[in-house]
Amino acid sequence: MTSSPAWPDLRGIAYGGDYTPEQWPRETWIEDVALMKQAGVNLVSVGIFAWALIETDEGEFDFAWLDELLDLLHENGIRADLGTPTASPPAWFFAAHPDARVLTRDGTVMGFGARGMASHSSPAYRDAVVRIASALAERYGDHPAVVLWHIHNEYGVPVGEDYSEQSVRAFRGWLQDRYGTLDALNTAWGTTFWGQRYGDWEHIGAPAAAPSVVNPAQRLDFARFTDHQLRECFILERDAIRAHAAQPITTNFMANQSWTTDMWAWARELDIVSDDHYLWAADEEGEIGLAIAADLSRSVGGGKPWILMEHSTSAVNWQPRNVAKRPGEMARNSLSHLARGADAILFFQWRASRSGAEKFHSAMIPHAGTESRVFREVVDLGAKLGRLDEVRGSRVVADVAVLWDFESFWAQDLEWRPSEDITHQTQVRAYYEQLWRDGITVDFALPGQDLSGYRLVVAPAQYLLSAADAANLTAYVEAGGTLVVSFFSGIVDENDAVHPGGFGAPLKDALGVRVEEFLPLREGDATTIAWSGGEPGTLGATAWQEDLVVEGAEVVATYIDGPGAGRPAITRHSHGAGTGWYVSTKLDRAGLTALMGAVYADADVAPSGYPEGFELVTRRGADADYLVAINHRSETVSLRAAGTELLTGTQIAGMLDVAGGEVAVLRTPRVLEGGGL
Amino acid sequence: MTSSPAWPDLRGIAYGGDYTPEQWPRETWIEDVALMKQAGVNLVSVGIFAWALIETDEGEFDFAWLDELLDLLHENGIRADLGTPTASPPAWFFAAHPDARVLTRDGTVMGFGARGMASHSSPAYRDAVVRIASALAERYGDHPAVVLWHIHNEYGVPVGEDYSEQSVRAFRGWLQDRYGTLDALNTAWGTTFWGQRYGDWEHIGAPAAAPSVVNPAQRLDFARFTDHQLRECFILERDAIRAHAAQPITTNFMANQSWTTDMWAWARELDIVSDDHYLWAADEEGEIGLAIAADLSRSVGGGKPWILMEHSTSAVNWQPRNVAKRPGEMARNSLSHLARGADAILFFQWRASRSGAEKFHSAMIPHAGTESRVFREVVDLGAKLGRLDEVRGSRVVADVAVLWDFESFWAQDLEWRPSEDITHQTQVRAYYEQLWRDGITVDFALPGQDLSGYRLVVAPAQYLLSAADAANLTAYVEAGGTLVVSFFSGIVDENDAVHPGGFGAPLKDALGVRVEEFLPLREGDATTIAWSGGEPGTLGATAWQEDLVVEGAEVVATYIDGPGAGRPAITRHSHGAGTGWYVSTKLDRAGLTALMGAVYADADVAPSGYPEGFELVTRRGADADYLVAINHRSETVSLRAAGTELLTGTQIAGMLDVAGGEVAVLRTPRVLEGGGL
Amino acid sequence: MTSSPAWPDLRGIAYGGDYTPEQWPRETWIEDVALMKQAGVNLVSVGIFAWALIETDEGEFDFAWLDELLDLLHENGIRADLGTPTASPPAWFFAAHPDARVLTRDGTVMGFGARGMASHSSPAYRDAVVRIASALAERYGDHPAVVLWHIHNEYGVPVGEDYSEQSVRAFRGWLQDRYGTLDALNTAWGTTFWGQRYGDWEHIGAPAAAPSVVNPAQRLDFARFTDHQLRECFILERDAIRAHAAQPITTNFMANQSWTTDMWAWARELDIVSDDHYLWAADEEGEIGLAIAADLSRSVGGGKPWILMEHSTSAVNWQPRNVAKRPGEMARNSLSHLARGADAILFFQWRASRSGAEKFHSAMIPHAGTESRVFREVVDLGAKLGRLDEVRGSRVVADVAVLWDFESFWAQDLEWRPSEDITHQTQVRAYYEQLWRDGITVDFALPGQDLSGYRLVVAPAQYLLSAADAANLTAYVEAGGTLVVSFFSGIVDENDAVHPGGFGAPLKDALGVRVEEFLPLREGDATTIAWSGGEPGTLGATAWQEDLVVEGAEVVATYIDGPGAGRPAITRHSHGAGTGWYVSTKLDRAGLTALMGAVYADADVAPSGYPEGFELVTRRGADADYLVAINHRSETVSLRAAGTELLTGTQIAGMLDVAGGEVAVLRTPRVLEGGGL
Repeated sequence: MTSSPAWPDLRGIAYGGDYTPEQWPRETWIEDVALMKQAGVNLVSVGIFAWALIETDEGEFDFAWLDELLDLLHENGIRADLGTPTASPPAWFFAAHPDARVLTRDGTVMGFGARGMASHSSPAYRDAVVRIASALAERYGDHPAVVLWHIHNEYGVPVGEDYSEQSVRAFRGWLQDRYGTLDALNTAWGTTFWGQRYGDWEHIGAPAAAPSVVNPAQRLDFARFTDHQLRECFILERDAIRAHAAQPITTNFMANQSWTTDMWAWARELDIVSDDHYLWAADEEGEIGLAIAADLSRSVGGGKPWILMEHSTSAVNWQPRNVAKRPGEMARNSLSHLARGADAILFFQWRASRSGAEKFHSAMIPHAGTESRVFREVVDLGAKLGRLDEVRGSRVVADVAVLWDFESFWAQDLEWRPSEDITHQTQVRAYYEQLWRDGITVDFALPGQDLSGYRLVVAPAQYLLSAADAANLTAYVEAGGTLVVSFFSGIVDENDAVHPGGFGAPLKDALGVRVEEFLPLREGDATTIAWSGGEPGTLGATAWQEDLVVEGAEVVATYIDGPGAGRPAITRHSHGAGTGWYVSTKLDRAGLTALMGAVYADADVAPSGYPEGFELVTRRGADADYLVAINHRSETVSLRAAGTELLTGTQIAGMLDVAGGEVAVLRTPRVLEGGGL
Repeated sequence: MTSSPAWPDLRGIAYGGDYTPEQWPRETWIEDVALMKQAGVNLVSVGIFAWALIETDEGEFDFAWLDELLDLLHENGIRADLGTPTASPPAWFFAAHPDARVLTRDGTVMGFGARGMASHSSPAYRDAVVRIASALAERYGDHPAVVLWHIHNEYGVPVGEDYSEQSVRAFRGWLQDRYGTLDALNTAWGTTFWGQRYGDWEHIGAPAAAPSVVNPAQRLDFARFTDHQLRECFILERDAIRAHAAQPITTNFMANQSWTTDMWAWARELDIVSDDHYLWAADEEGEIGLAIAADLSRSVGGGKPWILMEHSTSAVNWQPRNVAKRPGEMARNSLSHLARGADAILFFQWRASRSGAEKFHSAMIPHAGTESRVFREVVDLGAKLGRLDEVRGSRVVADVAVLWDFESFWAQDLEWRPSEDITHQTQVRAYYEQLWRDGITVDFALPGQDLSGYRLVVAPAQYLLSAADAANLTAYVEAGGTLVVSFFSGIVDENDAVHPGGFGAPLKDALGVRVEEFLPLREGDATTIAWSGGEPGTLGATAWQEDLVVEGAEVVATYIDGPGAGRPAITRHSHGAGTGWYVSTKLDRAGLTALMGAVYADADVAPSGYPEGFELVTRRGADADYLVAINHRSETVSLRAAGTELLTGTQIAGMLDVAGGEVAVLRTPRVLEGGGL
Repeated sequence: MTSSPAWPDLRGIAYGGDYTPEQWPRETWIEDVALMKQAGVNLVSVGIFAWALIETDEGEFDFAWLDELLDLLHENGIRADLGTPTASPPAWFFAAHPDARVLTRDGTVMGFGARGMASHSSPAYRDAVVRIASALAERYGDHPAVVLWHIHNEYGVPVGEDYSEQSVRAFRGWLQDRYGTLDALNTAWGTTFWGQRYGDWEHIGAPAAAPSVVNPAQRLDFARFTDHQLRECFILERDAIRAHAAQPITTNFMANQSWTTDMWAWARELDIVSDDHYLWAADEEGEIGLAIAADLSRSVGGGKPWILMEHSTSAVNWQPRNVAKRPGEMARNSLSHLARGADAILFFQWRASRSGAEKFHSAMIPHAGTESRVFREVVDLGAKLGRLDEVRGSRVVADVAVLWDFESFWAQDLEWRPSEDITHQTQVRAYYEQLWRDGITVDFALPGQDLSGYRLVVAPAQYLLSAADAANLTAYVEAGGTLVVSFFSGIVDENDAVHPGGFGAPLKDALGVRVEEFLPLREGDATTIAWSGGEPGTLGATAWQEDLVVEGAEVVATYIDGPGAGRPAITRHSHGAGTGWYVSTKLDRAGLTALMGAVYADADVAPSGYPEGFELVTRRGADADYLVAINHRSETVSLRAAGTELLTGTQIAGMLDVAGGEVAVLRTPRVLEGGGL
């Protein structure tokens, strides 16, 4: 279905942002294109929230302004990423179709006045998105400015789950497709518990507000259903466009910041992955969350180049405290995305809006205008990217995979888990962060995929694990892989039912342990762990212990105190040609550093050797490697390197000083590994 | 109406738990009964959530599986507590009777998918519960396995109050019954305040969400109404069963953990009191809350043996952090319930569920199976209980009563009280805890009941106190009793109206004081109190002071600082042959210890003399006393004792060492009082 | 329209409170009037919540009890402030007009049972308020006891915004009046952002719950609309009364504690401003909040005497911890209101209610009765006020104005602002508090009013500032005034759209700076500022910095650390004959003290020179000044003064010792300025 060019038709790295000239008078348009050229902008996203301006009433279209805009861009050599405006239907739509409005879990009707799509299951909404997408594709499928289609905006945010009658009806149909019979559904959901057995499809509802906790298997299926319905809406639009237009089609994710859509499944439907990423201002190391998002965007697309569709030049506006980026930070962020596979660096948005909910969001042209630090850095970044044409299309190299499975995350996020202190997000971040600090580049992976290319696979939060996926992980170990599994993994099957044999049973062969009982700690309690072999030092941990029964594994470390005192804390198991590690607690940072040091030795994975905060990622091109070095520290770091530093054009032989806050991009026939200051 | 055997027809202490074989294949049933026999299980509760499996559609019954189950149990000598499944109506019920769904205060409809009853006032629901209860009783009234009927489950949780139209209509009827005339209602509710006077019964609604705080008398009556309606539902089922079956009938409370039902009123309708109790994991001394629940269960039943219907073998699943029980803790918990009058020790549940909202709740057979610490301890506890047959039917001895009045708690829990820092629960716990630490066994009592059997009566939270009940307390003092009243007591009458004469006026004669004004402290502020007589040391307190006017009492202690500096803090009043103490502040633990020491001397009540955490309770049998000693400490405590230790069969003469964490049950002709390590 | 006497027809300072005899039997009425005379009470407010007692069913009136009451008051020389009971419609009203019920933003229907008006836009409600107001005025317009009309109660609390269909319809009409065309509305609201363009008036709704943040211009207009609708309801009642009665008409505000009504606009519709004020108990310096409220009440009325309609004798009942007033505190509060322009000192309420939601609210006669500290202080205060007849009608003198603009506050309070740590309330309080500590009396003012009478104008939170108002402030500086502007001012126009030219652009001429970018700090972060001229010492600040571009101003102080390190923090600009200060951060208390010291020197404003907490305010009469000195400290303060101390009748020449906690009122031909202990 989606055969199309692999990349928008433009030169070099794409650079630009969302552009909303409809908010400005015509004279500003003229100024804008001049400034875009000054800044090196070659791609802008248009039309994303313009439904009401294009289809002014049901079936009545006004393309004049968009014609004018696209022509203007084309005349000035700027390419367009043309959006379908379906994330924000017009007022007339909701007035004509009140039953398409979304209902929350507690029955509140979502009104107009902000933004947000209609019910993903509303026939009227589905008709309307096909109509507007078709109309746009028909009119602009051949427009020379249009090089990319941008469907919708951030599916699942701010509207994902819908509890309306339209959604309930669709849910029943989806369940019939999934289960075939009510018996199968009753078994999968375990409806004998709490007397929920269904005798009629029509009695099944959405998991709306109820007196107690709703059946978790039902909620998990509702999450799957929501993802499926949203994706169906996307496919409807995609196919409507493809009928008239040949350019690649994308939609923008919010990797690591939104959880409604299963990015792996979506990526299979896209021509190109794109992602929006915003720093979390309260996090003083927001660059780590950024790296997760970037690696995930690349991974779901199978390593292909992707588009950073939105990020910010400085502060956003929707966080509790919207911290502005410091000088150089925007460039470091942008080049970190590029290092991790992005071949397009775009912003929300070109020019700051005077009105509306996001007027305090930064932009390429801030309210202060072009006489501003931000615009000067925008121009400078455009120039830098202009020197990186050859990097385009190269691929990131990673020897380590971290498992990332939306279904497991959905299941683990449900209510009534053993401890509030455990979340999949903190567990993934903890292990990823350790790898980041050690300078090791990782891919994200699914537990069921081919993992044979990785020396090390880390499973920080694989609560839901099907028997088949467990077998895949076991086979990976057998074949010589090193697997690290963190606690609360391998607990339930795809129906959120505990595996027969007890917690972790499906991984018993790979890990040589089983979990007799969880031992969550009280709020704030910490615990200490000793190496079993008498190695000096201890490891710190919090939140969780387990009553672990060793069945073949060696005990690497033991609890000194807490409810599990004297019991195994960390184990290591030789299985086939490989090794399975099990970590039964939430190690603190120092504990994780010590643990992973031992794991790397097992897996023959080498840390970069550079100080923390000196980010190093390699992209492998056809003819050369591109080493991107981002110095998040304030002092200079000396990089052992040879080749050409592309941003400055300097030849490097042996040593390159990367000043604090600066970035280097080195073309090199050979990356030097290991290193030092 | 409820004439029936006083106890289920089985031998010795009952032991077992909720059993849900409908969640498992038939082969597991066979394994289950074998393991039950191994564990000494003699009673299981069945059918509690099985409505949808028994009545598969309105009026269509399928008893085959239940026939098979009960026969299997009978063949294996295991008795059944047969539940009516009315706490969780099937999906078809709500589909057929959507107006039976419960509405929350803010108008949210409670949907299906979790668990929870329908509106307590829905005619359709009431018809349905009579139909299913009758059908069960008719079929199984003579079944030899069935020795007990278990109606519903935990009335009031998770559904108590209902704001639906059905409930509003019933509320009006209940009010007409209570008040007869609108004038009487207007007076009782004080509707001249804020202009709420009603001129028509039809204008009265439930106290649903409103722009400001709803009339507290209306809310108090709605709490009474809710309790009444739930109890009516119970009575409907009870009578339906009694028409066909002669076994005793119970329903399981959640003493000290749920507040919707007035256990005193309910106990009058039951053949046997039963209770569910779960430790609050964040409380490192959860055994104190357990003791409160157990003493309350015994007290509302007038001291008769009761059933511990549910507790947990280890962690539960619905708290923020579900801490597992440590080795020995389950036995200590179980035997503490037994010490306080339980002749049945049951668990939720026999076998852990693989699916559903409570899959992480512990069970007698955990997910880890029988090769587990938990199951080994279950078998051991079964053996222990098997040695205590003779304890059955003996009665707990208590010289001290603590007042516990649901109506007062309901009233005090309403909005706009003088300080958020004051709750009835913390006040009751504080005084009870002091008595527990001092090794003094207490009953709970109503302020209006005969108190003459008690040397000491403590009123920690008697905010609502009718004039008649105040007279009863005054008469108790006159007759020689010692009464301790804590602040914010005797404030309002049964309509939540302040007593004429000011705060505490109805107790003025008994206490010799009146309260001119409350002096709540700011958040976190503490205060110090000095003994008036120059005794060394001070008492600490928080949250509250009063401007106290002494009218006859002696001032025992005085505020050193805070808004009441220099004013009386604690008073003691001789009235008739007795003594009334008044405590106008929230003493800290050390303060309470000092105060109660003085009170005990007045009341001739002796602390046990053993160290804190060495729990000692006596049950008095026809021929012997049974002293249960539970050592919550880690070190051994030496008990001065003589008789037979039943768990080991050892003869004791003079001294019994109870090791840390262990329990002893001593048959003795005479309990030795006082003691030491 | 509102021509009437300027003040109620009574002698001296009015003294009394809300009186609700309908809650008591007739014998209590007799006791009440006797006690009122004992306490010096000369004015009581009646009928405020009595709708259900007066209009017992739609159109059926019963005036008998009110006739009797007013006659009784008149016979005893006590004047009546007669309320219209429209803040709390009867049960029959809501039963007859269910569509008049208020809807919250999330769609919850506001029920009966508490208190609260109906929808401000309900025709049925509007008819009903005219009917009851007319009936009351017709019957009592000539009653000799009635000297004042009191419409409604605290408009906007607890019901302000309404999202019902009635309100939505009225909102559309209001918008049509405001904008004339949809194009104008679309432009004002910036509806191109997020695709919200309206093509039909009927598509516009209230800004109810939506998937994301609702258009801020729409929300701002909804706040304006709400204020307008409430005011229309007031005007309907006012005009209905005026048709039959000549006494002055008021309604009671909640200055500084409620934000729904634009007091400036309302004051134009009133004969007399009145205000309710309650201390915020958690604030240990509640007297500062009181002073703000009092100054605001005076200011919105143009400096005319006003009525303190309600305050409390001791604790209230609706705060988390309701701290009782300490001896003397009630008198200090009352005389502080008087010092700041109140010629009437009234309480809620005369006698504490036994029933209802506010039974724990203090009163002039508390539950403890007349043998109480509170009643003794009430009698004493009555006597004190009786010695202050001559103060009536005098005017407060102030040289400094603080800007207070409800429209700006409404706009700033909306969602998605740069930092949660910035609120208009804390900013206003910070600057006001500094002036209060320095003993400087201030008026509040609108940014667009004539400011020429003030030496100093402070703008702590002028987020929304129209171009016209900015021009007025600029002209004020040009003409020689001193203006202090705090950060996040001059940001948006009247449509919440960022001013062209960037943040603060409209004040660029007056201040000589523009703001390139906001630099909010992370939670809890602090920053230090150095004087640019090398003056010793530093200033502390939190929450906010800015990237400030100086365009003519001198840099007075510079950031030492934080994201703005090295950038200007405080600037001073000479413009015309005056000076404009700009403060780009949230100074801590010491920082503000230092800053304002420098500002006072510029503005030629002199602090009182007395220690903090010695409150000094002057009221200027026709023949004399009245200096009110309130000593909030515990030690004596010596006041340099000459004249007659009115409370004691003592002649003072040179020095008056005001003991800790005491108040003096000095008639003096000349206030001595400057001073010391």
